[in-house]
Amino acid sequence: MTNPTAAILAIGDELLSGRTRDSNLHFLAGELTRTGIALREARVVADDHAEIVAAIRALSAKYTHVFTSGGIGPTHDDITADAVAEAMGAKIGHRADAMALLQAHYDRSGLPFNEARQRMARVPEGAVLIDNPVSTAPGFTLGNVHVMAGVPDIFQAMVASVLPGLSGGPPLLSQSLRVMRGEGEIAAAFGALAAEFPDLSMGSYPFITNGAHGTNLVVRGTDPGRLDEVMIKLTRLFG
Amino acid sequence: MTNPTAAILAIGDELLSGRTRDSNLHFLAGELTRTGIALREARVVADDHAEIVAAIRALSAKYTHVFTSGGIGPTHDDITADAVAEAMGAKIGHRADAMALLQAHYDRSGLPFNEARQRMARVPEGAVLIDNPVSTAPGFTLGNVHVMAGVPDIFQAMVASVLPGLSGGPPLLSQSLRVMRGEGEIAAAFGALAAEFPDLSMGSYPFITNGAHGTNLVVRGTDPGRLDEVMIKLTRLFG
Repeated sequence: MTNPTAAILAIGDELLSGRTRDSNLHFLAGELTRTGIALREARVVADDHAEIVAAIRALSAKYTHVFTSGGIGPTHDDITADAVAEAMGAKIGHRADAMALLQAHYDRSGLPFNEARQRMARVPEGAVLIDNPVSTAPGFTLGNVHVMAGVPDIFQAMVASVLPGLSGGPPLLSQSLRVMRGEGEIAAAFGALAAEFPDLSMGSYPFITNGAHGTNLVVRGTDPGRLDEVMIKLTRLFG
Repeated sequence: MTNPTAAILAIGDELLSGRTRDSNLHFLAGELTRTGIALREARVVADDHAEIVAAIRALSAKYTHVFTSGGIGPTHDDITADAVAEAMGAKIGHRADAMALLQAHYDRSGLPFNEARQRMARVPEGAVLIDNPVSTAPGFTLGNVHVMAGVPDIFQAMVASVLPGLSGGPPLLSQSLRVMRGEGEIAAAFGALAAEFPDLSMGSYPFITNGAHGTNLVVRGTDPGRLDEVMIKLTRLFG
């Protein structure tokens, strides 16, 4: 059994100007790993219609799932829904189900359901709404593209709404060994071991602490027995 | 005068498994903005030769500069240099200048300059070395691709070595106004103002603090006079 694959596309000028540090990629990466979906690629593009369309087309053709974050609010720079509709060849308008959700929300809060706020009901035909327990305005799933808000609290709530409905694979497990030796010292033996275990992904991540070189050795895979086997060998070599 | 453009490509399985949170994108975004180079896209791919080659080709054809981070150490999963060489059609081998740098470094430190460490001298023909004041092993610039280490301290030192040699454009300036109103309330007037200033990029970033909705309004551009003009109008509208 193999694992489904995924990409994340984060959308927003603010992520590329250095103003905002993205946290959604890191959060989603952890959640997907637990679900058994292999995150293979991440992209960040600006609030630019053509760029979003091109990225959605490329990623949705290549991976089992695409998750987007950002650009579904009420302002003029929120253009993700229209771009996703174009990329996937769907029509888009103010959808009655999303209008009803938002109308009820603004009725409760006593705020006007004005034209800008109605923009958040623009959802492509055929898309399934994604529940937003934080602030009501929904995300949506169209084909294999899951469109979510960029605000981290809302993004995380939407991920929690979407993931239980997706089929994962066997959980992607990892184990690691921290070694107080430089990468250059352990590379040959570690590389030989990686060649011996082609079914596992083995990586080494150097660090410097108090002026001393160390390396974190990380092994990943889906078979717990194989992980144990390689960890025993690693500990014998470097432990 | 227009601004040169750039993309960053971060390379590494650990960034996609949720194990490591990338900080190089955010750091580089800020540095490029100060230099007047417009960061347009970011990608993260795994330690996979074909994926790295494809991303380098796509990005180097599209933007003035490509900056890569990660995958230039001594272990078997450090495959960036070879992938960049293939993408750019250059030959690669152990280069004499890089070998000499590393030999001197290991002679000083009393560590063996073994085969794994020699791997860090694999640099494409025609590439210019990028100085690494932290740990000696160099990065390199090949065509418009700047190849740097993934460890944040070293990445930052290499960026400091590279950026002064690149031509920037006029500095990319930004100003912002924090408004304690929800996006839906200010969207119409803010959108109209954005249409009035097509030479500026205007974005709104909602937040929730103590249960109250607020929005950061951010304007970006290269002409300080235009930025002042729009900020006066924004302050009159929402201040």
